[in-house]
Amino acid sequence: MKIVVDAMGGDRAPAVVVDGAVQAARDLGLEIVLVGQRDAVQAELDRHDTAGLPLTLVHASEVIEMHEHPAAAVKAKKDSSMVVGMDLIKQHEADAFFTAGNSGGALAAALFRLGRIRGIQRPALSTVFPSQTPHGHCFLLDIGANTDCKPEYLLQFALMGSVYTERVLGVPNPRVAILSNGEEEGKGNQLVQDTVPLLKASTLNFVGNAEGKDIPWGLADVIVTDGFTGNVVIKLAEGVSKFLIDVLKQEITSRTLSKVGALLARPAFDEIKRRLDYREYGGAPLLGVDGVVIVGHGRSDALAIRNGIRVAAKTAENQVLEAIKSGLADYI
Amino acid sequence: MKIVVDAMGGDRAPAVVVDGAVQAARDLGLEIVLVGQRDAVQAELDRHDTAGLPLTLVHASEVIEMHEHPAAAVKAKKDSSMVVGMDLIKQHEADAFFTAGNSGGALAAALFRLGRIRGIQRPALSTVFPSQTPHGHCFLLDIGANTDCKPEYLLQFALMGSVYTERVLGVPNPRVAILSNGEEEGKGNQLVQDTVPLLKASTLNFVGNAEGKDIPWGLADVIVTDGFTGNVVIKLAEGVSKFLIDVLKQEITSRTLSKVGALLARPAFDEIKRRLDYREYGGAPLLGVDGVVIVGHGRSDALAIRNGIRVAAKTAENQVLEAIKSGLADYI
Repeated sequence: MKIVVDAMGGDRAPAVVVDGAVQAARDLGLEIVLVGQRDAVQAELDRHDTAGLPLTLVHASEVIEMHEHPAAAVKAKKDSSMVVGMDLIKQHEADAFFTAGNSGGALAAALFRLGRIRGIQRPALSTVFPSQTPHGHCFLLDIGANTDCKPEYLLQFALMGSVYTERVLGVPNPRVAILSNGEEEGKGNQLVQDTVPLLKASTLNFVGNAEGKDIPWGLADVIVTDGFTGNVVIKLAEGVSKFLIDVLKQEITSRTLSKVGALLARPAFDEIKRRLDYREYGGAPLLGVDGVVIVGHGRSDALAIRNGIRVAAKTAENQVLEAIKSGLADYI
Repeated sequence: MKIVVDAMGGDRAPAVVVDGAVQAARDLGLEIVLVGQRDAVQAELDRHDTAGLPLTLVHASEVIEMHEHPAAAVKAKKDSSMVVGMDLIKQHEADAFFTAGNSGGALAAALFRLGRIRGIQRPALSTVFPSQTPHGHCFLLDIGANTDCKPEYLLQFALMGSVYTERVLGVPNPRVAILSNGEEEGKGNQLVQDTVPLLKASTLNFVGNAEGKDIPWGLADVIVTDGFTGNVVIKLAEGVSKFLIDVLKQEITSRTLSKVGALLARPAFDEIKRRLDYREYGGAPLLGVDGVVIVGHGRSDALAIRNGIRVAAKTAENQVLEAIKSGLADYI
């Protein structure tokens, strides 16, 4: 299995990306192709003992920065690590592409170079959300690729999410729900009301409407929504968690006894941090493009990069793309 | 100031509603009209020493239950406490109406008996969301009255939210934002993109787009959104908070030292609970109907009911309705 890694993607690239890629090559036995500015990447590689590891380097002179407008950047920077990396997948020189860079840029580059899977009208960005399902997470999409959606898009997101959750996250016959403003049938905006009949008519394991609280509470394994609402969801969850933790910290540092308590309760807090930690999963797929593309968090450290590369390998190995293609006929 | 209270509204009505109403009459010097099933309400009143308190009781034979379809229930139950209560406001026999019952029912009853403010196309449900603004909260609307919105509705929500936040929550010149999937101008679904020019052209203190995380982080004092997204937001915030607290509890009870820690850190947790406590505010207004209507949480206890009645009195006293009416000409 050969994975292309965007050496220039992420807040601390190329240093941590190279660290994570070296770990992946060493621990997971994967062939890694690092794509990026040769001198900068080589300097990072030189910090490691890479003798005998299946690591290669492909030069790309340009970088798509985090703040750039995705489509414009991809058009203007044809020698960027993202575009060059996608081309390696396109030409079947590798099995999957991993980037912790600009997720909109990854979407634009994938559409531009790989195109869509035939029958999928819109690709979707996804995330693995911590949740009280038996397996500890819920797969949520779209989280930002498509702000305005049609019912067929959501049906296709549901199919793609279901295939990925079964094949890569290991959940048999995943429960699929649609995000709505009430659990009762009939609740929802026009988009939800028009999508529900399509989901019911499919062979997916559709369990109905989910409310916001049901995402962390584990009502479903896959939850579909439009990219506007999905984006609000992931950013609100981040904001609420940080708010709670900040208020706790303020309170704890203002009280001596609480400080002692906080020290003693630290293992519990550490466990919460672990449960909420995006590094555990490493990345989530860009589903619907004709190639395996995994997008990691911009704040990824070396462990997250390593895990993201593992996710990319598992997605290719378990033939998610092929399953989506055949599922389009079987499920819908 | 005379406040009509729906004695039958809320999970533990009429008992806790009567408790809260008696407190409001005693502590705040407000005249209270309890509306509900005479025998049940009188039995609760008999538990208190109400001698000399300005409390009266108006009989209404029917109750709109929490699970009922709002519009159908309001049409079918013309002698329900909600409909009878709204009529008392309509006939100017009291200044405001408070209910902790079915919020959709309150909306339907208000539309049915009070009608809309002239110039407001859709009323909105709102909430006071805990946030790191200087005053500790952010006013969010719509949270469920209108799942599909037009740009003019959101503009009107912004005006109503701004007036309420200034007059009742005491925030001078409130910062108004629109919820979106990115802070940069140009981000947003079609609705957001069509609404932003209207907000910019108004005389409101419009500060631009807010992301999900900005609601708790205090970027704005008023945040407007459609009722679908707003409903997902409040339920997700509830779910994420409960998830974090549940995981902490699980972890803490599984470790002896952590248990001691938890005990010592309890004051900090108590403070967080207080900051997140909906009882502090007691209720949020149903804005856009032609009368002062405050809706409390279904789980309200006596303190929350008392505070909700105080909010109703303050909303009437500070002439929020009149300010919205004149604002329609001035602000937009």
